Amino acid sequence: MTATDTLPRVSAAALKAYINRAFTAVGIPAADAAVLGELITEADLRGSDTHGVFRMPQYCKRIKAGGVNARPDIRVAQERPSTAIIEGDNAMGHLIMKRAAETAIAKAKQTGVGWVGARMSNHAGPAALYAMMPLAHDMIGLYFAVGSNNHLPPWGGGESLLGTNPIAVAVPAQDEPPVVMDMSPTVTAYGKVRLKASRGEAMPVGWMIDKQGKPLTDPKRADEGHLLPIGDYKGYALSLIIGLLAGPLNRAAFGRDIVDFVTRPEATTNTGQSIVALSVEAFAPVAEFKRSVDLMVRALRDSERLPGVERIWLPGEQSHSKRLDRAKHGIPMPPPLRKSLDELAKELKIDPVM
Amino acid sequence: MTATDTLPRVSAAALKAYINRAFTAVGIPAADAAVLGELITEADLRGSDTHGVFRMPQYCKRIKAGGVNARPDIRVAQERPSTAIIEGDNAMGHLIMKRAAETAIAKAKQTGVGWVGARMSNHAGPAALYAMMPLAHDMIGLYFAVGSNNHLPPWGGGESLLGTNPIAVAVPAQDEPPVVMDMSPTVTAYGKVRLKASRGEAMPVGWMIDKQGKPLTDPKRADEGHLLPIGDYKGYALSLIIGLLAGPLNRAAFGRDIVDFVTRPEATTNTGQSIVALSVEAFAPVAEFKRSVDLMVRALRDSERLPGVERIWLPGEQSHSKRLDRAKHGIPMPPPLRKSLDELAKELKIDPVM
Repeated sequence: MTATDTLPRVSAAALKAYINRAFTAVGIPAADAAVLGELITEADLRGSDTHGVFRMPQYCKRIKAGGVNARPDIRVAQERPSTAIIEGDNAMGHLIMKRAAETAIAKAKQTGVGWVGARMSNHAGPAALYAMMPLAHDMIGLYFAVGSNNHLPPWGGGESLLGTNPIAVAVPAQDEPPVVMDMSPTVTAYGKVRLKASRGEAMPVGWMIDKQGKPLTDPKRADEGHLLPIGDYKGYALSLIIGLLAGPLNRAAFGRDIVDFVTRPEATTNTGQSIVALSVEAFAPVAEFKRSVDLMVRALRDSERLPGVERIWLPGEQSHSKRLDRAKHGIPMPPPLRKSLDELAKELKIDPVM
Repeated sequence: MTATDTLPRVSAAALKAYINRAFTAVGIPAADAAVLGELITEADLRGSDTHGVFRMPQYCKRIKAGGVNARPDIRVAQERPSTAIIEGDNAMGHLIMKRAAETAIAKAKQTGVGWVGARMSNHAGPAALYAMMPLAHDMIGLYFAVGSNNHLPPWGGGESLLGTNPIAVAVPAQDEPPVVMDMSPTVTAYGKVRLKASRGEAMPVGWMIDKQGKPLTDPKRADEGHLLPIGDYKGYALSLIIGLLAGPLNRAAFGRDIVDFVTRPEATTNTGQSIVALSVEAFAPVAEFKRSVDLMVRALRDSERLPGVERIWLPGEQSHSKRLDRAKHGIPMPPPLRKSLDELAKELKIDPVM
C-alpha cells in the first residue's frame, strides 16, 4: 500500500468540471476552459501531482493579476512547410502548446516532421502531455521547454542562470504502453525540495550544493543553494541546449530574463516551448516499428534484475499504471490540496470539487 | 602543462594523408578515402582521441575481414519532403553520415527542418562531427546513434541491453564558438574504463556496478559489470529513447541484436544513426539568434564561480580550443598510438605518418 491508497478520491469528471468552472470564473472563454479542464485533469490522472490541479490557485492568481491573458489571440506568426512559430499572446501555456502540437502533427502528415516553437507562452503543466499528443497519429513526439525558474548554475558556477528545463519524448508501441520519457536535467525537482522542507526532512547529498559548492541537505536553506545537474557537466549541457532550442530560437526568455512566475504573478514570462512530431511511416512500416518497440520493452522488463529489485520499469510505465487506476478509482485528494481547492472555490464563488 | 604538451606532434595534413593511404590500400575508392581522411583527422583535431585515428587498425581490420563494405552504394531508400532514410550498404559510417547530414541540410533549406536516418551503417567517429555540419548553413544540428556495444542495463537490471548511445547537438553563435554538446547517457565511457585498466588504476565509485549492484572499482573486472547511467533512471530513459530513434525507427539493430564490432570484425553491425538539421531562420532572424547565443555564452562564462574553480566552460569550448591549438601546432601522438599506426602502415605496405 502506498500513501495515496488511504486518501479520499475524486472522479476525473468532477475535477475537470471544477477546473472548467474556475477558469470560466476568472474570465476564460468556455471552449478554452474546457480544453484546460481536459489537459490539467490528464496531468492528475497520470500522476503528475505537482503539475496538475495543484497549480490552480497559482494559475488563477496569475490570470487575475494580469500575468496571463485570459482572452488571447493565439496564432501562427511564421511558418515553413515543416516549421512554425506560434505567437502565444501570453495565454495559458496549455492552450498554446495544444495548438503547437496540432500544428506539428499536421505538418508531419505533409512532410514527415513538424517542428513548432512557441513564444509568449506560460507554464503548460507536464511535458509528457504534449510529447504524447502525436502518438494517436502514429507519430513520435518530442517536447522541450524553458523552466519557469532558474535553479541550476553552469558546471563549476555559483549563479543559477539555467532552469530545470524539461525534455519529454513519447514513442508509440503496439500492445505495450508507449515509452514516455519526461525528465529534467537536474538530479531532483525543486518541488521535491519544497516537499522535504514542508515535512522537516533532510535532503540526500547530491541534490543541492550551497554557495561554497558543499552539499546542502537542509531544505529550509534551499534559497542559499543550487540544484545539481545529472551527470555533472552533462546535465548542465543538456539544460543549456534544451533552453537554447526552446528559448532564444523561439525568441522567448532565457537566462537572466527568466521571470519567476510564482513570486511575480503580474509579470509576463515570455515562456518558450517547442514540440516536434515525427511520422513513423516516413521511416519504417508502422506495424513493424511498433512491434519492435514492444519487443524491446519486453526484453527490458523481463531481463535479469539486480538483487532486491522487484520490477524493471519502462519510462512512462508507472504514469500509465496510475492513469488506469485513477481513471477507474478516481484521483487521490490529500487534505491540504482539498483545502486549497476549496479556498479557491470560495474566492471565485464557484462550487467546490464535488 | 597537460600530459599532451610533452608529446611529439604530427600535422593534420600528415595525418590526413596517412588515413587516405591506409583506406586506399584496403580497397576504398580515392574520393571516399579523402572524405574519411578529412573527417577522422577532424575528430583528432577536436580532441576526440579515442574516436579518431586511434581507430584506424580496427577500421582497416573490419574492412579486410568483410565486416565493412569498401565499395558501397549509399543511397536514399525512401524520402518525404523533410525526412529520408539512407541505406548505408554497410559502408564506413563516416561516409553514410556525411551523406545523411547533406541530405538533412538540403531538406531544411526547403522546409525548415530535415530529419534523416541511416541504416546498415557503421561506427562513424564522434557524434559532434555530424551535429556540427549544419552550422555552416546557419542551422542547428542534432545527432543520435545506437552505440556499438551494450554496456548499460535498464535501471534496476543486471543485463546490459543498452549502449552508451550518444547524442550531440550543435548551436551556432556569432563571435563565440558554437555551443556543442556531445554526450553519452552513462557516467563514463567504456574507453575510460579500459584506460584505467591499462594504467592499473582503480575506478571511482559511481562509474560501474557489479552483478550484485555493488560499486565496481577494479577496471580489470569490467567484463563482470555494467556502466551506470547519469541521473539513475533518467540516463536509462535517455539511452533507450536515443536508441529507439536511431535504431528501430531506422530499421537498424538494437538491444540483443547489437553486434560488438570490436570482437567480431567480420560481422555486419547494421548500425543506426540519425541527423536533424534545423534552419534558424525558420524561427528567428539569424543575426538576432546568434547574438543571443553569444550573450548567454558570455553570461555563463562570466558568472560567479564556486571556490577553486578557475573557469566555467561552455559545452564544446574545450574541443574548440584544442582544435585551434592542434591546427596550429599539430596533433599529439602518444608513443603507443605511433606504434600502432606504424604497425598498420607496415601491414598495409604504405608510408607511415610523416
